Amino acid sequence: MKLVPLADRVVLKQLEAEETTKSGIILTSSAQEKPQEAEIVAVGPGGVIDGKEVKMHVEVGQKVIYSRYAGSEVKLDGQEYIVVRQNDILAIVED
Amino acid sequence: MKLVPLADRVVLKQLEAEETTKSGIILTSSAQEKPQEAEIVAVGPGGVIDGKEVKMHVEVGQKVIYSRYAGSEVKLDGQEYIVVRQNDILAIVED
Amino acid sequence: MKLVPLADRVVLKQLEAEETTKSGIILTSSAQEKPQEAEIVAVGPGGVIDGKEVKMHVEVGQKVIYSRYAGSEVKLDGQEYIVVRQNDILAIVED
Amino acid sequence: MKLVPLADRVVLKQLEAEETTKSGIILTSSAQEKPQEAEIVAVGPGGVIDGKEVKMHVEVGQKVIYSRYAGSEVKLDGQEYIVVRQNDILAIVED
Amino acid sequence: MKLVPLADRVVLKQLEAEETTKSGIILTSSAQEKPQEAEIVAVGPGGVIDGKEVKMHVEVGQKVIYSRYAGSEVKLDGQEYIVVRQNDILAIVED
Amino acid sequence: MKLVPLADRVVLKQLEAEETTKSGIILTSSAQEKPQEAEIVAVGPGGVIDGKEVKMHVEVGQKVIYSRYAGSEVKLDGQEYIVVRQNDILAIVED
Amino acid sequence: MKLVPLADRVVLKQLEAEETTKSGIILTSSAQEKPQEAEIVAVGPGGVIDGKEVKMHVEVGQKVIYSRYAGSEVKLDGQEYIVVRQNDILAIVED
Repeated sequence: MKLVPLADRVVLKQLEAEETTKSGIILTSSAQEKPQEAEIVAVGPGGVIDGKEVKMHVEVGQKVIYSRYAGSEVKLDGQEYIVVRQNDILAIVED
Repeated sequence: MKLVPLADRVVLKQLEAEETTKSGIILTSSAQEKPQEAEIVAVGPGGVIDGKEVKMHVEVGQKVIYSRYAGSEVKLDGQEYIVVRQNDILAIVED
Repeated sequence: MKLVPLADRVVLKQLEAEETTKSGIILTSSAQEKPQEAEIVAVGPGGVIDGKEVKMHVEVGQKVIYSRYAGSEVKLDGQEYIVVRQNDILAIVED
Repeated sequence: MKLVPLADRVVLKQLEAEETTKSGIILTSSAQEKPQEAEIVAVGPGGVIDGKEVKMHVEVGQKVIYSRYAGSEVKLDGQEYIVVRQNDILAIVED
Repeated sequence: MKLVPLADRVVLKQLEAEETTKSGIILTSSAQEKPQEAEIVAVGPGGVIDGKEVKMHVEVGQKVIYSRYAGSEVKLDGQEYIVVRQNDILAIVED
Repeated sequence: MKLVPLADRVVLKQLEAEETTKSGIILTSSAQEKPQEAEIVAVGPGGVIDGKEVKMHVEVGQKVIYSRYAGSEVKLDGQEYIVVRQNDILAIVED
Repeated sequence: MKLVPLADRVVLKQLEAEETTKSGIILTSSAQEKPQEAEIVAVGPGGVIDGKEVKMHVEVGQKVIYSRYAGSEVKLDGQEYIVVRQNDILAIVED
């Protein structure tokens, strides 16, 4: 069973606290809408969205920092996912 | 008697709690606007909506995760439906 | 005396509680902005509205589910009407 | 002395309570933004408004139902007027 | 010393209470955003504003009714002025 | 050290109270968003901003009335500046 | 490990209080959304964003004043960064 995102949506898997520490990202926990590190597990096809052509610039497997503000949480097969729009992804974290 | 959605609207039938468990999706119940799993029972024709051409990318029978935020609930012949815009559908759940 | 709607407006006549039961639609009464069943009694001409061409896709006599949110109530000759924009009509109810 | 409306504005003269009764329109008085019956006394020229061509579809002398929400009240020579945008006129009342 | 308005802005000089009475306009004083009568003392050049061509349709010396909502008050050489956008002018008052 | 504004931004230096009095502008001090007199010390290049071509119509050295609402205050070398968008400038004050 | 911003986003490193003093910028600390001085450490590629072509006009190494309002804070390898859109950068600080 898997999530196939529509349009410009991207499915993210949040990195666990331990992984987060390992990657060197320490996020302040005082605010609910602070960006978060996650791994991309599925990318929508893009296309014409709200009358505008949207190209996807992210790929499965990338680690990203995203703004949690517009994301929707889903649990599938015991794993939590976050579905965001590509535009809610702020930056890719490269090693 | 059936609902024929207009424009980019999609009629959804929420999956029962038991079905939800069977499919492996467990939704947190703490927030009212959390996404939800549902099955598509009718799809509008798309077309020019608010001056922009909208194509429909979903089909009857698909299981989807949607954002409950903008949906409208309707009861027809004892069955509850949710009418959402295509844009409120976040992802298709595939087996 | 009759109401001739402008632009993309549609005049609706709400179905009475008894009719509603007959048609099999049971609406939850807990929220003010829940969709409602009604019959179309007049349809505006459409045309260029807010700089965008709007075509009318509904007809007099159709039963529809609409979102009450943006509608305006009017009483004419002892009959209550609701004036909505076409976009506030969610779906047509077909037998 | 007279009011010459600019752009897509329309000057309305509200019909008195007695006239309202005569015309068969009874308005609920419980909400401030309910539509109201009025007679058109002046119509703006239309033209390019906010970058979009607007044509005027109403005429002096027509009785209309309008949404009071965006209207501005003015008193001129002891007569009250309402200045609305054409888009705030919901329907024309025809005999 | 004078105010030269930019873009689609218009500089207004509010008519005094006595003048207001003389012109026959009596404004209700219960609301802060009610329209007001004023005389135009300077008109901006119009042009491309927010990506849209705006032409100016008012002239210095005209008496106008405007919506006070978006206006800014300025005092220059002891005289109070109101700077509004042309779009905040509802109608011209002609004798 | 100097501020080089981006896009359609303009750097202003507020005129001191004494200068303000000398120029004849007296501003009401009761509201925080009232317009203010200032001198332009730097003008951005304009260009395509939010998809729209913006031309700059103001120059360094001009005295202007601006709406304080969207401005950002900065202190550089002991001098306070206000960074506004050109659109927040209401009018130029000419002698 | 580094942050690679997407679209029109820019990664900033806030200047320390001491650096801030050295550069002569003194920021009022009374408001949370006041602009701030920072150094650019990464610049997104620009491109078509929300249907509009955006070109990047800033470069790594520049000192800038930005509006903190829309920025997102991230900590990577013990260093705090701010991710903003180019449009949130008000001005470049040149020596």
